[in-house]
Amino acid sequence: MSEHIVKSFDEELQELAAGIAEMGGLAESLVDDSVTALARNNGELAQEVIRTDIRLDQMQRDLEEKAIIMLARRQPMALDLRQAVAVLRISGDLERVGDLAKNIAKRALAIDGQFNSKSLTHGVEHIAELAMTQLKAVLDAYAARDIAASAQIRARDQEVDALYTSLFRELLTYMMEDPRNISQCTHLLFCAKNIERIGDHATNIAETIHYLVTGEQLSDERVKDDLTSTTSMDFGPAAND
Amino acid sequence: MSEHIVKSFDEELQELAAGIAEMGGLAESLVDDSVTALARNNGELAQEVIRTDIRLDQMQRDLEEKAIIMLARRQPMALDLRQAVAVLRISGDLERVGDLAKNIAKRALAIDGQFNSKSLTHGVEHIAELAMTQLKAVLDAYAARDIAASAQIRARDQEVDALYTSLFRELLTYMMEDPRNISQCTHLLFCAKNIERIGDHATNIAETIHYLVTGEQLSDERVKDDLTSTTSMDFGPAAND
Repeated sequence: MSEHIVKSFDEELQELAAGIAEMGGLAESLVDDSVTALARNNGELAQEVIRTDIRLDQMQRDLEEKAIIMLARRQPMALDLRQAVAVLRISGDLERVGDLAKNIAKRALAIDGQFNSKSLTHGVEHIAELAMTQLKAVLDAYAARDIAASAQIRARDQEVDALYTSLFRELLTYMMEDPRNISQCTHLLFCAKNIERIGDHATNIAETIHYLVTGEQLSDERVKDDLTSTTSMDFGPAAND
Repeated sequence: MSEHIVKSFDEELQELAAGIAEMGGLAESLVDDSVTALARNNGELAQEVIRTDIRLDQMQRDLEEKAIIMLARRQPMALDLRQAVAVLRISGDLERVGDLAKNIAKRALAIDGQFNSKSLTHGVEHIAELAMTQLKAVLDAYAARDIAASAQIRARDQEVDALYTSLFRELLTYMMEDPRNISQCTHLLFCAKNIERIGDHATNIAETIHYLVTGEQLSDERVKDDLTSTTSMDFGPAAND
């Protein structure tokens, strides 16, 4: 073993960025697997997601510790300082993405064995595809320090939100049509919400990339919440017209 | 104005701790107001929660920046390093608590004007009381650096989870009894989930206090998720027995 005892600052930064890439890859596959487990009723895959999320949590703790020690030891300024801050923020977002995937996997286990209509999960798969596209795009944008791409990702979060809002209404309609759907649809509502929040974390990462490259903090004024919580949904008799 | 241009390290730390206390007080009142808005159908109060949350977000950004600049400039070690890290973590948790209160306020607005039964909100008020007690206790424990209290708060999170699980089942039952309840109960389910997550953030803060005082990271192995996502709920005809 002929490792350097003292790493250069650039080596430390590269190590942190590599850690984010690794966490990102793992977070992506957790989301993918959790939705597959839900759609195909695959309990084993769901269990694996739950187990693997523990590893993602540990990776986040390690990266956080490295970034903080670097901050304290190296006294970085300007761009270097922002690199360390970006690692802190992005690793936090990716850890949360893993938690949300784990929650979907747990719901997949809960739905398993109940009255279970495959057709109800289609909408959730659809929004998950969009959220996963966003997550992949933002990890690429981070690797490339691409603020044009990160701006597009921020803008596209509204599509995720719109899809979620329409899915929310659709699931509520199924519940009203047949009470046997209520339990499954409730779990699917929470899964859809978790996926919408994965989209929010992709947007957070896009904002961190903007800060990393420009030094400018984006204000949090954009509409990032779903509309179902602000819309009074009148599901009267005419709702299914 | 005769301010010191250069603050002492202890002054900086005190300023950070005071910032956490201020954020904590605001987060507590946002939770309280959002639940009151929900229970009393008070749209004006709900709007105020949504507006005030912007201020909490700004406070978090400011505190984060101060803590990071202090890390980079002062090169703190051991306890001092942990103080700065604790500020980063706790301010993040409190910012999320504010977001969750804002979400509850939005649901209060959404429910307003719908078929609306007061009796359905009782369970949500009950779990909110417990979560607020946890939040208040953990802020006191932070101010006192009290790890015995923080251990109690961690243990008590299971009560919040148990209450949430029972409320989840109760709300599902109401939905099955009368389809007119579905829309309101769905919003209440999300409110209850938000409150359960406020409890999780109180627990996170308790773990940060443990780390702050002892330097030891608590592993994330404790059961902190609700059981509704792992329990297959069979809501057959016998469910209301």
